[in-house]
Formats: sequence, structure tokens, C-alpha cells
Amino acid sequence: MLEQIKTIQDLKKLTVRELPELCAEIRQMLISNVLESGGHLASNLGVVELTVALHYVFDERDRIVWDVGHQSYVHKILTSRGENFSSLRSKDGVSGFPDCEEDGRDSFNTGHAGTAISAALGLAKARDTLHDDYKVIAVVGDGSMTCGLTYEALNNVKDTNMLIVLNDNNMSIGKNVGSATLNMSKLRVGKYDRNKERLKRFLLKIPLLGKPTYKFLRWCKRRAKLGYPRNSYFDNFDLKYVGIIDGNEVKDLVYYLTRIKNNVTKPTVLQIVTKKGKGYEPAEADPETYHSVNRKGAEVGALESSVVVGDTLCKIASEREDVVAICAAMAKATGLAAFQNQFPDRFYDVGIAEEHAVTFAAGLAKGGARPFVAIYSSFLQRSYDQILHDVALQNLPVTFLIDRAGFVGEDGKTHQGLFDLSYLSQIPNLKIWTPSTYSELSQMIQSSLHENCPVAIRYPKRLSSDKRDFVGRWNVLSPCDNPRLTLLAVGANQTNTALRIAEAVPSVEVVEVTTVKPLDANYLNSIKTNTQIVTLEENVLQGGFGQSVAEYIAKNNSGVPVINLGVNDTFVKHATVEEQLIANGLDFDSLLKTVTEILSNC
Amino acid sequence: MLEQIKTIQDLKKLTVRELPELCAEIRQMLISNVLESGGHLASNLGVVELTVALHYVFDERDRIVWDVGHQSYVHKILTSRGENFSSLRSKDGVSGFPDCEEDGRDSFNTGHAGTAISAALGLAKARDTLHDDYKVIAVVGDGSMTCGLTYEALNNVKDTNMLIVLNDNNMSIGKNVGSATLNMSKLRVGKYDRNKERLKRFLLKIPLLGKPTYKFLRWCKRRAKLGYPRNSYFDNFDLKYVGIIDGNEVKDLVYYLTRIKNNVTKPTVLQIVTKKGKGYEPAEADPETYHSVNRKGAEVGALESSVVVGDTLCKIASEREDVVAICAAMAKATGLAAFQNQFPDRFYDVGIAEEHAVTFAAGLAKGGARPFVAIYSSFLQRSYDQILHDVALQNLPVTFLIDRAGFVGEDGKTHQGLFDLSYLSQIPNLKIWTPSTYSELSQMIQSSLHENCPVAIRYPKRLSSDKRDFVGRWNVLSPCDNPRLTLLAVGANQTNTALRIAEAVPSVEVVEVTTVKPLDANYLNSIKTNTQIVTLEENVLQGGFGQSVAEYIAKNNSGVPVINLGVNDTFVKHATVEEQLIANGLDFDSLLKTVTEILSNC
Repeated sequence: MLEQIKTIQDLKKLTVRELPELCAEIRQMLISNVLESGGHLASNLGVVELTVALHYVFDERDRIVWDVGHQSYVHKILTSRGENFSSLRSKDGVSGFPDCEEDGRDSFNTGHAGTAISAALGLAKARDTLHDDYKVIAVVGDGSMTCGLTYEALNNVKDTNMLIVLNDNNMSIGKNVGSATLNMSKLRVGKYDRNKERLKRFLLKIPLLGKPTYKFLRWCKRRAKLGYPRNSYFDNFDLKYVGIIDGNEVKDLVYYLTRIKNNVTKPTVLQIVTKKGKGYEPAEADPETYHSVNRKGAEVGALESSVVVGDTLCKIASEREDVVAICAAMAKATGLAAFQNQFPDRFYDVGIAEEHAVTFAAGLAKGGARPFVAIYSSFLQRSYDQILHDVALQNLPVTFLIDRAGFVGEDGKTHQGLFDLSYLSQIPNLKIWTPSTYSELSQMIQSSLHENCPVAIRYPKRLSSDKRDFVGRWNVLSPCDNPRLTLLAVGANQTNTALRIAEAVPSVEVVEVTTVKPLDANYLNSIKTNTQIVTLEENVLQGGFGQSVAEYIAKNNSGVPVINLGVNDTFVKHATVEEQLIANGLDFDSLLKTVTEILSNC
Repeated sequence: MLEQIKTIQDLKKLTVRELPELCAEIRQMLISNVLESGGHLASNLGVVELTVALHYVFDERDRIVWDVGHQSYVHKILTSRGENFSSLRSKDGVSGFPDCEEDGRDSFNTGHAGTAISAALGLAKARDTLHDDYKVIAVVGDGSMTCGLTYEALNNVKDTNMLIVLNDNNMSIGKNVGSATLNMSKLRVGKYDRNKERLKRFLLKIPLLGKPTYKFLRWCKRRAKLGYPRNSYFDNFDLKYVGIIDGNEVKDLVYYLTRIKNNVTKPTVLQIVTKKGKGYEPAEADPETYHSVNRKGAEVGALESSVVVGDTLCKIASEREDVVAICAAMAKATGLAAFQNQFPDRFYDVGIAEEHAVTFAAGLAKGGARPFVAIYSSFLQRSYDQILHDVALQNLPVTFLIDRAGFVGEDGKTHQGLFDLSYLSQIPNLKIWTPSTYSELSQMIQSSLHENCPVAIRYPKRLSSDKRDFVGRWNVLSPCDNPRLTLLAVGANQTNTALRIAEAVPSVEVVEVTTVKPLDANYLNSIKTNTQIVTLEENVLQGGFGQSVAEYIAKNNSGVPVINLGVNDTFVKHATVEEQLIANGLDFDSLLKTVTEILSNC
């Protein structure tokens, strides 16, 4: 059936009774494709029925904003990207997140959590300003209800005609936290499903009267759910509330969505309960693991930075009672799961609330505890003001553990860790350390305890297993007597590539930059005028490591030429990390060419 | 009486009956001092009784976190800074915000709204981790309830022993907005005050029985307010709720705070209603104007950037129906009050919710409207991720109107606009324009309409009244045939100072930098090798304008020496703008010295 659905119009030709079969086919397609290509599996399995029902009921010109966007695969399959779906997350293939450039029916690009209601409200107000009349729908997971941006948006929705579908699966990326979310839904799908099915089976067994009774009861239930329920949380925002609906029942969804679409002009919340991973047993049983799966054949089992982080923090915490750890809905992904188990009283998962995570850490540090905040590079962008205003301004000893720095590969442009060296370097009092080996990462985490200031340690998913020690200054890895060129390399990929260059080209010195801030003044002052400096970083050039070096040299060792290599003022799309390095001239071949050219011009 | 209160211990020796007189004296001191020194008047007049009661009831080792912190003057007077209070907001004087360096009893530095509950929660958790037992109190205005960070914190408070005093004055800086805040308090102080006073007068007129009846009724009321009230908003977070209390009745406050302190271990919200500006009639009548008053003798009446912004936006909006404007609780301060009056349907005050403001603007732009977002430089720091991830990544035409860029003077280190050139420059797709005259500011706002990308226009409170046109490239203001030195000046102060230097020193060319991003490549390429470039900006050096120039020159016109002047990796304390320029070597005398030295070394 799915093969015949080339357009949304084809979908609309189906009868409601045919939709469950379509959903089953989509689910099979998802499972077989995503296990191959890698990507977000559990969340997409949960929203198959919702996505089908939304496109079945609403018009193509209506706007659906997918919060976070990792659950937009079904939407992509239904909007002409099904045929190309095996290219998911590959270079030049289908993006794993909504992308307006890819298809106009992706109404708004998303990637970070909690933006959908804000953005949808903007679309709705633009519609009203321009006297148009399309519908606007925000699809939001309950995890995003822990996010302040969602709250700020809810607080401004009043009187705007829009629909918010709260997709309640009782999960952020990890388990949900927080009081509001606990109160949000009293029913969970397991029990609800069971009881409903039991009643249906019982009634349908009764001859003659059974089926009409079942249909009458279903009609009563549907009318009641449309008309009467209230939710104390959404009442605060003066929103009409419909729910709780089984979000994996496509016929029910079509019923409710049709009535909401036709009758409701007040802003409305439709709360549905879905099962993350629905239809694929391993994912139902462990949705956190199946939140994002690796590409088939991807390197698995190798050591990851998060493991080193977890082990080191557990070791420190067993020695010092003042050590506490904080994450934002990603205990497992950041490596803190072991810490959470061993030291539950000193572990805080604050939900998808990166700003609170940082200001809370500032309070902890001010109160004498020693907090470690583990947040991915791209998500920590949200806490820029909190790092500056709450931590750095008071010079509080908070250690930031910033995973997924640099290129992140398949997740693409919304998730790149390419800005952290810039947004952190400009903050006074803060030190920035950049390990390129696991041993350095571990030593840096321990060393940060001896600093009386905030420290940011940034690293990618994987580092080098070489043994090198962190001694607080840069490591000259391939010393030269009179180098014609010195490569200042930040991070694992760049250091490894630089070492290969030094093997291939004579008179090249390689320096592993372990501290981006402060710079190693002794080393920089020692560079002779006839040496060309080339800086290498997986970060945008503007405000990054290279520019600090250029400015330092201009002031203190002028005459030494400096060239900065990095990402040149652009957003970097999904592809493998290696392809992203190539696209930005940071792979071995590109660098060899650049270095050879520079040396021939000297 | 106030003169005898040298320490908190002296305060505690007073009887409860003496407190109203003390409050009256403090209020007089505030009015006479702040009208002289300038500062936040209305908010401090509102919390006199609250502050006295908190210090009367709680211990010196307990921690009070003042949200925003502009209402901490009474706290400062009571904690040994009363004698020095006339130095408020002056160089080396008392800071206008809590400052731990100034006094340890300022438990946590604040300045931006909405941080108090996060920080207080951190202090409380640190206390529990370290097995201490002091009390933690967050004092939060109802304006901060519109802020996502406050929500994120509330969502994590559960089971933590701490007190949140919600100081409800029905105001952010401007009028409150948003559904949640509308529902938050059903009673407002005016009516409540009147009815209470009427009943009291009536009862006390009745001989014999009147006074005991009054006292009995008061006892009943107090018990009831302590025991029974619920609030649907705070119920969501499982917080104990006490309220609503008249926050300008010091005896009532002492009663409730004492009982909460002694009996309550659950996290508790005490909602009090206070009158902003209480006791000073002009401020009671117009608290927005008296939110912050100018230093006596300060230049008033002169044109301000915000006026030009308001006038220009009104003109554009009357010509184009798609133009909409957004601010975050500061319609008057950002100059949008006139727009709000003339185009109420296209004006959005989202509350103290800078992140939502920006993502909402992205939605508006995506929907075809043309949004202008007016937020002060320091507060826009909160939207770094939203500018990058929601606006710039989709290259949406949103214009940011960024007032109070550069040194802000008396508000000091939490409010400086010294980071915007850095945090904006690193964002791809975004253009950054920097007017130094009112005419340019107006033209830039209009020009931004013709850009198909986001544009940030950053400017200080006041600009030059010179007439200069914005033509999209840099303005060479004092051309030289063979300049020995060229000053690239960003913004009004720097351009004016550079022009004075060119008058004093021969062979100096002055360039007014109107576009920080993109750089004017034509001009930079035309600079000859024997010319020294000096960049001037009111911004931190790291990631700012100067470093972009240094990197560009190294790549494209190498050999030309570049020196960057700006703020060198430090937070800048309160003082006048002129004093801040001097402290950072950016005033005329310092610059003359620097330029002379550079030229003598050439």
C-alpha cells in the first residue's frame, strides 16, 4: 500500500479503515531502514499513527512544526522522501531532521528541544497578520515540557488559533524528570491499553447488543474527551485541553483531529499517549538505547569519551564528598549513568533544561560543592548567558564536560559542536582545555578540581588511545630544530592529522594544543620569525583558537605569519565526520596540499 | 533609629512594634539618596518591609538570593553598607546589584532576571550535600515568572527545603504579560488594602469588643493563610503555598516568616503583594518611569537611540503591513511604546522571555512577516542559541535592535554590552551593523528590510547627531594620502575619539566601521604595508571586530601590522561610561598615548 502513496493526495484517498495497514507498512519500512542507515528509531516508531493521522486530516498547506525534529521520519516518508529514504543521514541524502531546503513541507527547521511552540506561535501570528487561514500544529514531546523555552511560549499562546499535540511517551531522551511532568499525565499507555482492549473483547463477545454497545460507549468516550477534560497545568495558560487519547490508535486520532480542525478556534492542547519504540520489541523494552541507533557496520564497542568521563567522575566522587554531577536529560549519553547509580544523592538530571543546569551548578559551587556539568557542545549553546553571568562573573569553580565537540557527523547542522571554542573563549575567567587522548581527558577532569575558576573541557565522541599526560602547557609532539612551519592542532582529529603531515613533510613541528585558553604564552613567544604558524581546529574560525593566536602574535611576537584553518563561517550539513573534514579542508590530503603550498610560497 | 542599626544584631534587638518606624526611615533614606545618585527606586521602595522582616526573622548565615538584584538596596543598607550608600553605583562605590566581593552576605550575584530559584536550589543542595543546616530564601518578582529559567528551576525544586518569596507587584519592568502571570494572583494590593483598612477602622470604633474581635479575626486570617490556601500553578510543582499576604505590612511579614522558618521543611512559596514605588507618590503613580532614575544632573532630554528606533519602526510599519515588533518586558525602554500604541496588533511583549522572543520571531519570519526584535545587548545573550539555531540556520530575515551595546555605565558588570560583537560574529549568515550616528541608525533599520538574512544592529544609549549616511561600506572620515596609521573605529564613542586623534596627530586616517560583518574587504585590501592598522571597539577583544580584521589581513593582505584595542578579557564594574573608557584605555588621552607610541616605534 505504501508504494502507492506518492503524494499526500494519495493518502487522503484511503479510507480510515485502511490506515492501520498503512501504519504497519510504514513501521516495517522504518525498522528495516533505520537499523541499516542508523538514526532515531524509537521516537519515530512511536509517532507513525500520529503522523499519518495529521497528514490525513490536515491540508498540505497547513504547517506542522516537529519539536526536536528527530521524530519527523514518517513525515518525510509521506512527503515524497520515501523513495530516497535509504540515504537517510548520508552526505547529500535525506536529513535526519526537518529541513526547509529539502522540502517546503518541513515548515520549520528543528533540532534542539523546546522550540516548536514558539515557532508555531510565530507562524500563526504571521498568518493572522497577513490575513491567511492555514492551520498551525506544534508536535511536542513531553520531554520538552521540562524546557523553559516551551514554558515561555505557552505563556504567550493565549487566543491564538493553533493546535499543540503533546506526544506523551513519558520520556525525554532518558527518563523524564521534574514535578510538572510527573503531574502532567496520570494515565500511562500500558494499563490504559490493557483495560481498553479487555473491555472491547468482552463487549464484542455479547451477541447482537455487544457491538452497538461498544460503539455507543466509544462515542460517549470520544464526546467526553472532546468536551470535558481539564488539565490543571494547561488551565494556567488558558488553553483548551483534549485528552488523554491513545496516540497509537490511528482511527481515534483521525476522529479527534478532524473535530478539532473543524470546530476549534481557541488554542488547544491534544494530549496523546504513545509508546516509544512501538512495534519493535527491543526498542519498546529499552527506548533509551534505541533512541538513536548506529549505522550498520559502524564502529561499536570501541572506547568513547563518555566512558572515561563516567569512570573518572566516579573515582573522584568516591574520594571527595563535595563532588556532584549534573546533566540535562542525558545521563547515559554523557556517561553519567554509573555516577547516577553509585551516587544518587549527588546526581542531578534536571531535564531538558540546560540553562537551569548551569545556574544551578553556580549555586552549588557558591555553596561549597564541586559541580561537574555534562552537556553536549551544541546544547550548551543554550547556557551561554548562564555560563557568563552566573558562573564566570563570580569566578565559580564549575567544570563543564562538553562532549560531541567538533564535527558530529550524521546529525548534521543543528547538532554540530563547532561554536564552543568561540562562545567560551570570549568569557572572562573561564579556562578551556582540549584533550586529544583519553588519558588527558581523565587527567584534565581531575586537574580541574585544583582550579579556583570555571573550566571547560571539550572533546569529541572518540579520542586517541595514545598515552599522553596533561601538564598544563602545550605538548610539542614532533620537535624540530628550526621548523619552517609549526602546526598548532586542537583536538584528536587535528593532532593525528598534523602528526601524519610531519611524517610526510620535513621541517614541520606539531604542537598539541591542550589549553585553548589561556594560550601557552611561552611557546608562542619562542616561535621565530621565519616560522609559519598554522592553526588547526574543528570550530568556526570567527572567535576561535586561531584568531586568539593571531591576535596574540600580532601583539607579542609580530612578524611571525599566522594562518588559521577551521570552519569558515558556515553551517555544516550531515555526512560522516571524515566527509565533513574533507568538505572543510581539514582532512589529511587537503592539509598536505595547504602545507605544501604555504612552504613553496615562503 | 536607622542610625543605631549598625549590624543585623542591632536590628534583631528592636521589637516588632518598632519595625514600621524603621521602615519609614529607610524609605526616606532611599528616596533622598536614589534621587541624588540615580538607580532603581520603585522596586526598592516596594520591598522595604520584606527586607526588614527577612533580616529580622532569619539568621545572618542564612542565604537570601535576590532575583534580578535591583531590589537589594535595603538589604545593602541593613548589611553595613548604609553609611557608604551615597556612593551607590559610582566608581569604587556600592554596586547597584548584589555583589559577593562587596559583602559576603550578598549570597549570589544577580543582574539578569529569573536566576534566583536556580541558584538558591543550588545553594540548598550544596548545604544538604555538605550536611549544613542554614536556610535558603529566593526573593523573586512576579515578572520573573514569565522567564523560562524560573520555570526550569521550579520544576526541579521538589522536596528541597527552601523558601521562595514571590514578590507580586503586577509588574515586570513594564506591565506584566502572559497567561500564567495573569492567573497567578487574583488579588491586587489596591483593593485588598482598602478593604482591610476599612474593616480595621470599623472594628476599632466598637468599644470594648472591637479590639479583641479585630485581633481574633486577624489570628484566624493568619492561621488560615498559613494552613489552607492552594495555588493551581504552584501545585503543579508540588510546592507548599502560603498567601496572599500584604507585603508592605512588616508585622504580618514577621508573623508569617517566623512560622515558615520554624515549622516548614517542604519547599514553600510565600506570595506577597507589594506596591512598586510604595511611599513615594510619583513612583507609585508611574512605576515604569521610576523603575530606574537618572543621577541628579545627568543629561536628560537629549535624543536617545531608542527614540530613533521607535520613530523609524512606526514609519516603516505605516508603510508595510508585514512589519511586526517584539520586545521582552521593556516596551518603553527599547523605544517601542509608540509602536505598541499605534500598531497593537503587530506588537508583541512576550515578558522576560528573551529566548521565546527570538524563536517566535523566527516563526514570524518563516511565515512571511518581517519581525524586529528589540532587546538590550546584555539580555540578548540569553538568546544566543535561538539566534543561531532558529534564525540564522534558516537564514531568516529578522532584524535585531540591540540597545545598550558597549559600556553601560552605572549598572555595571552584569549589564555591560561588551560581548555582542563576539557572540554574534561567530554566527553564520548574520550581518552586524554598527551605527555611530542617529541618521545611520534610522537608515540601517530601513535598509535591513531589503536583506534576505538576519541583521543585527547594535548601538549604545546615545549616538552622535552628525549627519552621515549608511551606504553599506565603511566611511573614511578623515582621508589621508599616505596614512602611517589607520584607526578602524566601531561605534559612536570610538569614532568621535578617533576623529579627535586625527586632528591631533598627522598622517592618521579614521574609518567609521559601519559593518562589523561582513568586513569591508575593498578597504582592507587597499591598505598599504607601511600603514599600521589599529582597531577600536567597545567589546571584548576575543572574538570581536579586531580579531576578524587581524585574521582577514593575515590571509589577504599579510604584512600589514594590526593592533586590536578593546576590553581585554575582563568584566567591567560600575562607574560612568567615561570612567569605564579610561579604565580600558579607550578614552582620548589613553588612545593618544597609544597612537603616539606606536608611531614612534614604526
